[in-house]
Amino acid sequence: MPHVSIKAPVPGIGGLLATRPDTAQPLMLLAETLLRGPSPLSRGERELIAAYVSERNACRYCADSHGAFAAEQLDGGEELVKAVLTDPSTAPIDARLRALLQVADEVRAEVAPVSDEAVAAARAAGAQDADLHDTVLIAAAFCMYNRYVNGLGTELPADPGQHYRESARRIVTHGYLGQRA
Amino acid sequence: MPHVSIKAPVPGIGGLLATRPDTAQPLMLLAETLLRGPSPLSRGERELIAAYVSERNACRYCADSHGAFAAEQLDGGEELVKAVLTDPSTAPIDARLRALLQVADEVRAEVAPVSDEAVAAARAAGAQDADLHDTVLIAAAFCMYNRYVNGLGTELPADPGQHYRESARRIVTHGYLGQRA
Repeated sequence: MPHVSIKAPVPGIGGLLATRPDTAQPLMLLAETLLRGPSPLSRGERELIAAYVSERNACRYCADSHGAFAAEQLDGGEELVKAVLTDPSTAPIDARLRALLQVADEVRAEVAPVSDEAVAAARAAGAQDADLHDTVLIAAAFCMYNRYVNGLGTELPADPGQHYRESARRIVTHGYLGQRA
Repeated sequence: MPHVSIKAPVPGIGGLLATRPDTAQPLMLLAETLLRGPSPLSRGERELIAAYVSERNACRYCADSHGAFAAEQLDGGEELVKAVLTDPSTAPIDARLRALLQVADEVRAEVAPVSDEAVAAARAAGAQDADLHDTVLIAAAFCMYNRYVNGLGTELPADPGQHYRESARRIVTHGYLGQRA
Protein backbone atom coordinates (compact mmCIF):
# COMPACT_ATOMS: atom_id res chain seq x y z
CA MET A 1 0.00 0.00 0.00
CA PRO A 2 1.35 3.46 -0.85
CA HIS A 3 2.58 5.64 2.04
CA VAL A 4 0.10 8.42 1.15
CA SER A 5 -3.50 8.12 0.05
CA ILE A 6 -3.91 8.08 -3.72
CA LYS A 7 -6.89 9.75 -5.36
CA ALA A 8 -7.19 7.48 -8.40
CA PRO A 9 -6.75 3.69 -8.53
CA VAL A 10 -3.85 4.09 -10.96
CA PRO A 11 -0.50 2.27 -10.47
CA GLY A 12 3.00 3.77 -10.54
CA ILE A 13 3.44 7.52 -10.95
CA GLY A 14 -0.07 7.93 -12.40
CA GLY A 15 -1.82 7.84 -9.02
CA LEU A 16 0.58 10.43 -7.59
CA LEU A 17 0.09 12.72 -10.60
CA ALA A 18 -3.70 12.51 -10.26
CA THR A 19 -3.49 13.19 -6.52
CA ARG A 20 -1.18 16.20 -6.85
CA PRO A 21 -1.82 18.15 -10.07
CA ASP A 22 0.26 21.05 -8.68
CA THR A 23 3.47 19.00 -8.78
CA ALA A 24 2.35 16.84 -11.72
CA GLN A 25 2.48 19.78 -14.10
CA PRO A 26 6.20 20.67 -13.74
CA LEU A 27 7.15 16.97 -13.48
CA MET A 28 5.43 16.19 -16.78
CA LEU A 29 6.73 19.35 -18.47
CA LEU A 30 10.24 18.22 -17.55
CA ALA A 31 9.61 14.70 -18.94
CA GLU A 32 8.18 16.16 -22.15
CA THR A 33 11.20 18.48 -22.56
CA LEU A 34 13.85 15.88 -21.79
CA LEU A 35 12.33 12.91 -23.62
CA ARG A 36 10.50 14.56 -26.53
CA GLY A 37 11.86 18.11 -26.90
CA PRO A 38 14.71 19.11 -29.27
CA SER A 39 17.82 16.95 -28.79
CA PRO A 40 20.43 15.25 -30.99
CA LEU A 41 19.24 11.99 -29.39
CA SER A 42 16.13 10.42 -30.90
CA ARG A 43 13.01 10.01 -28.76
CA GLY A 44 13.55 6.25 -28.79
CA GLU A 45 17.17 6.61 -27.63
CA ARG A 46 16.13 8.93 -24.80
CA GLU A 47 13.38 6.57 -23.62
CA LEU A 48 15.96 3.78 -23.71
CA ILE A 49 18.34 5.75 -21.48
CA ALA A 50 15.42 6.42 -19.09
CA ALA A 51 14.45 2.73 -19.06
CA TYR A 52 18.05 1.60 -18.54
CA VAL A 53 18.62 3.94 -15.58
CA SER A 54 15.29 2.81 -14.08
CA GLU A 55 16.22 -0.86 -14.57
CA ARG A 56 19.57 -0.33 -12.83
CA ASN A 57 17.74 1.52 -10.04
CA ALA A 58 15.32 -1.43 -9.72
CA CYS A 59 12.32 0.79 -10.38
CA ARG A 60 10.12 -1.82 -12.05
CA TYR A 61 7.31 0.57 -13.00
CA CYS A 62 9.58 3.14 -14.69
CA ALA A 63 11.78 0.53 -16.38
CA ASP A 64 8.81 -1.29 -17.88
CA SER A 65 6.84 1.78 -18.90
CA HIS A 66 9.77 3.67 -20.46
CA GLY A 67 10.98 0.36 -21.93
CA ALA A 68 7.60 0.11 -23.67
CA PHE A 69 7.84 3.74 -24.87
CA ALA A 70 11.35 3.02 -26.23
CA ALA A 71 10.24 -0.21 -27.96
CA GLU A 72 7.43 1.68 -29.67
CA GLN A 73 9.90 4.20 -31.12
CA LEU A 74 12.98 2.10 -31.97
CA ASP A 75 13.39 -0.17 -34.99
CA GLY A 76 14.54 -3.07 -32.82
CA GLY A 77 11.34 -2.97 -30.75
CA GLU A 78 10.92 -4.99 -27.57
CA GLU A 79 13.77 -7.35 -28.37
CA LEU A 80 16.29 -4.51 -28.60
CA VAL A 81 15.03 -2.93 -25.37
CA LYS A 82 15.32 -6.26 -23.56
CA ALA A 83 18.89 -6.73 -24.83
CA VAL A 84 19.91 -3.23 -23.63
CA LEU A 85 18.28 -3.63 -20.23
CA THR A 86 20.03 -6.96 -19.80
CA ASP A 87 23.50 -5.85 -20.92
CA PRO A 88 24.32 -2.81 -23.10
CA SER A 89 27.81 -4.20 -23.81
CA THR A 90 26.35 -7.03 -25.93
CA ALA A 91 23.18 -5.31 -27.22
CA PRO A 92 22.98 -4.44 -30.95
CA ILE A 93 23.34 -0.64 -30.57
CA ASP A 94 25.88 1.78 -31.98
CA ALA A 95 29.06 2.76 -30.12
CA ARG A 96 27.81 6.27 -29.32
CA LEU A 97 24.64 5.04 -27.59
CA ARG A 98 26.59 2.33 -25.78
CA ALA A 99 29.03 4.92 -24.44
CA LEU A 100 26.19 7.25 -23.42
CA LEU A 101 24.50 4.43 -21.48
CA GLN A 102 27.76 4.07 -19.54
CA VAL A 103 27.71 7.82 -18.80
CA ALA A 104 24.10 7.49 -17.63
CA ASP A 105 24.96 4.61 -15.33
CA GLU A 106 27.78 6.58 -13.71
CA VAL A 107 25.39 9.49 -13.06
CA ARG A 108 22.93 7.05 -11.53
CA ALA A 109 25.45 5.26 -9.34
CA GLU A 110 26.80 8.27 -7.48
CA VAL A 111 26.62 12.04 -7.11
CA ALA A 112 30.02 12.75 -8.63
CA PRO A 113 31.59 13.95 -11.86
CA VAL A 114 31.23 11.47 -14.71
CA SER A 115 34.67 9.89 -15.23
CA ASP A 116 36.96 11.46 -17.84
CA GLU A 117 37.23 7.97 -19.38
CA ALA A 118 33.47 7.66 -19.92
CA VAL A 119 33.27 11.17 -21.41
CA ALA A 120 36.27 10.51 -23.67
CA ALA A 121 34.75 7.22 -24.89
CA ALA A 122 31.47 8.95 -25.72
CA ARG A 123 33.27 11.76 -27.58
CA ALA A 124 35.42 9.24 -29.48
CA ALA A 125 32.16 7.59 -30.60
CA GLY A 126 30.84 10.91 -31.91
CA ALA A 127 28.97 12.39 -28.91
CA GLN A 128 28.89 16.19 -28.76
CA ASP A 129 28.13 18.49 -25.82
CA ALA A 130 24.37 18.23 -26.30
CA ASP A 131 24.42 14.40 -26.30
CA LEU A 132 26.41 14.41 -23.07
CA HIS A 133 24.29 17.12 -21.44
CA ASP A 134 21.00 15.45 -22.34
CA THR A 135 22.20 12.01 -21.24
CA VAL A 136 23.40 13.30 -17.86
CA LEU A 137 20.18 15.24 -17.25
CA ILE A 138 17.90 12.34 -18.29
CA ALA A 139 19.82 9.96 -16.01
CA ALA A 140 19.64 12.48 -13.15
CA ALA A 141 15.93 13.06 -13.73
CA PHE A 142 15.19 9.34 -13.53
CA CYS A 143 17.04 9.20 -10.23
CA MET A 144 14.25 11.57 -9.16
CA TYR A 145 11.26 9.87 -10.84
CA ASN A 146 12.43 6.43 -9.64
CA ARG A 147 12.72 7.65 -6.04
CA TYR A 148 9.33 9.36 -6.18
CA VAL A 149 7.61 6.20 -7.49
CA ASN A 150 9.43 3.69 -5.24
CA GLY A 151 9.88 5.94 -2.19
CA LEU A 152 6.14 6.42 -1.74
CA GLY A 153 5.51 2.71 -2.26
CA THR A 154 3.26 2.98 -5.31
CA GLU A 155 1.80 -0.21 -6.74
CA LEU A 156 2.48 -2.11 -9.95
CA PRO A 157 -0.24 -2.66 -12.56
CA ALA A 158 -2.39 -5.78 -12.15
CA ASP A 159 -2.14 -6.39 -15.90
CA PRO A 160 1.32 -5.07 -16.82
CA GLY A 161 1.26 -6.09 -20.50
CA GLN A 162 -1.93 -4.20 -21.24
CA HIS A 163 -1.10 -1.26 -18.95
CA TYR A 164 2.28 -0.50 -20.50
CA ARG A 165 1.01 -1.03 -24.06
CA GLU A 166 -1.81 1.46 -23.50
CA SER A 167 0.53 3.95 -21.80
CA ALA A 168 2.95 3.63 -24.72
CA ARG A 169 0.23 4.35 -27.27
CA ARG A 170 -0.89 7.40 -25.30
CA ILE A 171 2.59 8.83 -24.67
CA VAL A 172 3.92 8.26 -28.17
CA THR A 173 0.82 9.90 -29.67
CA HIS A 174 0.06 12.70 -27.20
CA GLY A 175 3.23 13.14 -25.13
CA TYR A 176 3.58 13.68 -21.39
CA LEU A 177 1.40 16.78 -21.33
CA GLY A 178 -1.53 15.14 -23.13
CA GLN A 179 -4.69 13.81 -21.53
CA ARG A 180 -3.86 11.31 -18.80
CA ALA A 181 -5.88 8.14 -18.24
CA MET B 1 36.67 22.11 -15.88
CA PRO B 2 33.08 21.16 -16.70
CA HIS B 3 32.51 18.23 -19.10
CA VAL B 4 30.54 20.44 -21.52
CA SER B 5 31.23 24.00 -22.58
CA ILE B 6 29.38 26.58 -20.52
CA LYS B 7 28.07 29.76 -22.07
CA ALA B 8 28.36 32.05 -19.06
CA PRO B 9 31.18 32.16 -16.50
CA VAL B 10 28.75 31.25 -13.72
CA PRO B 11 29.47 28.47 -11.17
CA GLY B 12 27.21 25.59 -10.17
CA ILE B 13 23.90 25.08 -11.90
CA GLY B 14 23.80 28.71 -13.14
CA GLY B 15 26.17 28.10 -16.05
CA LEU B 16 24.16 25.06 -17.18
CA LEU B 17 20.90 27.00 -16.99
CA ALA B 18 22.34 29.85 -19.06
CA THR B 19 23.71 27.38 -21.63
CA ARG B 20 20.48 25.41 -22.01
CA PRO B 21 17.41 27.65 -21.55
CA ASP B 22 15.23 24.86 -22.99
CA THR B 23 15.87 22.55 -20.04
CA ALA B 24 16.35 25.42 -17.56
CA GLN B 25 12.72 26.43 -17.80
CA PRO B 26 11.12 23.16 -16.57
CA LEU B 27 13.93 22.64 -14.03
CA MET B 28 13.30 26.06 -12.48
CA LEU B 29 9.51 25.69 -12.66
CA LEU B 30 9.88 22.46 -10.68
CA ALA B 31 12.12 24.15 -8.09
CA GLU B 32 9.68 27.06 -7.77
CA THR B 33 6.74 24.66 -7.30
CA LEU B 34 8.46 22.36 -4.81
CA LEU B 35 10.29 24.96 -2.73
CA ARG B 36 7.97 27.98 -2.91
CA GLY B 37 4.54 26.76 -4.08
CA PRO B 38 1.67 25.78 -1.74
CA SER B 39 2.75 23.24 0.91
CA PRO B 40 2.18 22.64 4.62
CA LEU B 41 5.98 22.99 4.95
CA SER B 42 7.32 26.53 5.15
CA ARG B 43 9.68 27.77 2.46
CA GLY B 44 12.51 27.76 4.99
CA GLU B 45 11.78 24.15 6.00
CA ARG B 46 11.73 23.04 2.37
CA GLU B 47 15.04 24.78 1.58
CA LEU B 48 16.46 23.07 4.67
CA ILE B 49 15.38 19.63 3.40
CA ALA B 50 16.96 20.47 0.02
CA ALA B 51 20.19 21.63 1.68
CA TYR B 52 20.32 18.56 3.94
CA VAL B 53 19.86 16.10 1.06
CA SER B 54 22.52 17.98 -0.93
CA GLU B 55 24.91 17.92 2.03
CA ARG B 56 24.43 14.16 2.43
CA ASN B 57 24.98 13.76 -1.33
CA ALA B 58 28.18 15.81 -1.04
CA CYS B 59 26.95 18.37 -3.56
CA ARG B 60 28.79 21.39 -2.15
CA TYR B 61 27.21 23.93 -4.49
CA CYS B 62 23.60 22.88 -3.79
CA ALA B 63 24.16 22.39 -0.05
CA ASP B 64 25.67 25.85 0.38
CA SER B 65 23.25 27.68 -1.89
CA HIS B 66 20.07 26.09 -0.51
CA GLY B 67 21.58 26.34 2.98
CA ALA B 68 21.84 30.09 2.40
CA PHE B 69 18.25 30.24 1.10
CA ALA B 70 17.08 28.33 4.20
CA ALA B 71 19.06 30.57 6.58
CA GLU B 72 17.47 33.64 5.00
CA GLN B 73 13.96 32.27 5.70
CA LEU B 74 14.31 30.55 9.09
CA ASP B 75 14.40 32.26 12.48
CA GLY B 76 17.52 30.32 13.50
CA GLY B 77 19.46 31.62 10.49
CA GLU B 78 22.88 30.28 9.54
CA GLU B 79 23.50 28.73 12.94
CA LEU B 80 20.38 26.57 12.72
CA VAL B 81 21.21 25.49 9.16
CA LYS B 82 24.73 24.53 10.19
CA ALA B 83 23.39 22.49 13.13
CA VAL B 84 20.95 20.59 10.88
CA LEU B 85 23.53 19.91 8.18
CA THR B 86 25.92 18.62 10.85
CA ASP B 87 23.43 16.41 12.72
CA PRO B 88 19.63 16.72 12.66
CA SER B 89 19.33 14.52 15.74
CA THR B 90 20.89 17.24 17.95
CA ALA B 91 19.75 20.35 16.02
CA PRO B 92 17.15 22.64 17.66
CA ILE B 93 14.23 21.73 15.36
CA ASP B 94 10.80 20.29 16.11
CA ALA B 95 10.09 16.55 16.09
CA ARG B 96 8.09 16.71 12.87
CA LEU B 97 10.88 18.33 10.86
CA ARG B 98 13.45 15.98 12.40
CA ALA B 99 11.37 12.96 11.35
CA LEU B 100 10.88 14.38 7.84
CA LEU B 101 14.64 14.87 7.44
CA GLN B 102 15.01 11.16 8.22
CA VAL B 103 12.42 10.36 5.52
CA ALA B 104 14.36 12.59 3.08
CA ASP B 105 17.62 10.83 3.88
CA GLU B 106 16.08 7.41 3.21
CA VAL B 107 14.80 8.61 -0.18
CA ARG B 108 18.28 9.93 -0.97
CA ALA B 109 20.13 6.81 0.11
CA GLU B 110 18.32 4.31 -2.08
CA VAL B 111 15.57 3.84 -4.65
CA ALA B 112 13.21 1.95 -2.34
CA PRO B 113 10.09 2.50 -0.27
CA VAL B 114 10.66 4.75 2.74
CA SER B 115 10.63 2.48 5.81
CA ASP B 116 7.35 2.04 7.68
CA GLU B 117 9.25 3.12 10.82
CA ALA B 118 10.29 6.46 9.34
CA VAL B 119 6.77 7.13 8.05
CA ALA B 120 5.23 6.17 11.40
CA ALA B 121 7.65 8.44 13.28
CA ALA B 122 6.76 11.37 11.01
CA ARG B 123 3.03 10.75 11.42
CA ALA B 124 3.42 10.43 15.21
CA ALA B 125 5.08 13.87 15.14
CA GLY B 126 2.13 15.34 13.25
CA ALA B 127 3.07 14.91 9.59
CA GLN B 128 0.16 14.47 7.18
CA ASP B 129 0.09 13.09 3.63
CA ALA B 130 1.14 16.39 2.09
CA ASP B 131 4.18 16.77 4.39
CA LEU B 132 5.29 13.24 3.48
CA HIS B 133 4.61 13.68 -0.23
CA ASP B 134 6.42 17.01 -0.44
CA THR B 135 9.40 15.76 1.57
CA VAL B 136 9.81 12.66 -0.60
CA LEU B 137 9.52 14.66 -3.82
CA ILE B 138 11.94 17.40 -2.68
CA ALA B 139 14.49 14.77 -1.62
CA ALA B 140 14.04 12.94 -4.95
CA ALA B 141 14.36 16.19 -6.91
CA PHE B 142 17.65 17.06 -5.20
CA CYS B 143 18.96 13.62 -6.15
CA MET B 144 18.45 14.97 -9.68
CA TYR B 145 19.78 18.52 -9.24
CA ASN B 146 22.83 17.25 -7.29
CA ARG B 147 23.67 14.74 -10.04
CA TYR B 148 23.23 17.36 -12.77
CA VAL B 149 25.54 19.83 -11.01
CA ASN B 150 28.20 17.31 -9.92
CA GLY B 151 27.91 14.89 -12.86
CA LEU B 152 28.84 17.56 -15.40
CA GLY B 153 31.71 18.76 -13.22
CA THR B 154 30.53 22.34 -12.71
CA GLU B 155 32.74 24.69 -10.73
CA LEU B 156 32.36 26.25 -7.28
CA PRO B 157 32.21 30.03 -6.83
CA ALA B 158 35.53 31.81 -6.36
CA ASP B 159 33.98 33.93 -3.57
CA PRO B 160 31.43 31.56 -1.97
CA GLY B 161 30.32 33.90 0.82
CA GLN B 162 29.35 36.68 -1.56
CA HIS B 163 27.98 34.37 -4.25
CA TYR B 164 25.55 32.51 -1.97
CA ARG B 165 24.47 35.70 -0.18
CA GLU B 166 23.61 37.35 -3.49
CA SER B 167 21.83 34.21 -4.75
CA ALA B 168 19.83 34.06 -1.52
CA ARG B 169 18.71 37.68 -1.84
CA ARG B 170 17.65 37.08 -5.44
CA ILE B 171 15.83 33.77 -4.83
CA VAL B 172 14.04 34.87 -1.66
CA THR B 173 12.85 38.06 -3.38
CA HIS B 174 12.14 36.92 -6.94
CA GLY B 175 11.97 33.09 -6.79
CA TYR B 176 13.40 30.53 -9.17
CA LEU B 177 11.59 31.92 -12.20
CA GLY B 178 12.79 35.49 -11.67
CA GLN B 179 15.61 37.20 -13.54
CA ARG B 180 18.85 35.20 -13.23
CA ALA B 181 22.21 36.91 -12.77
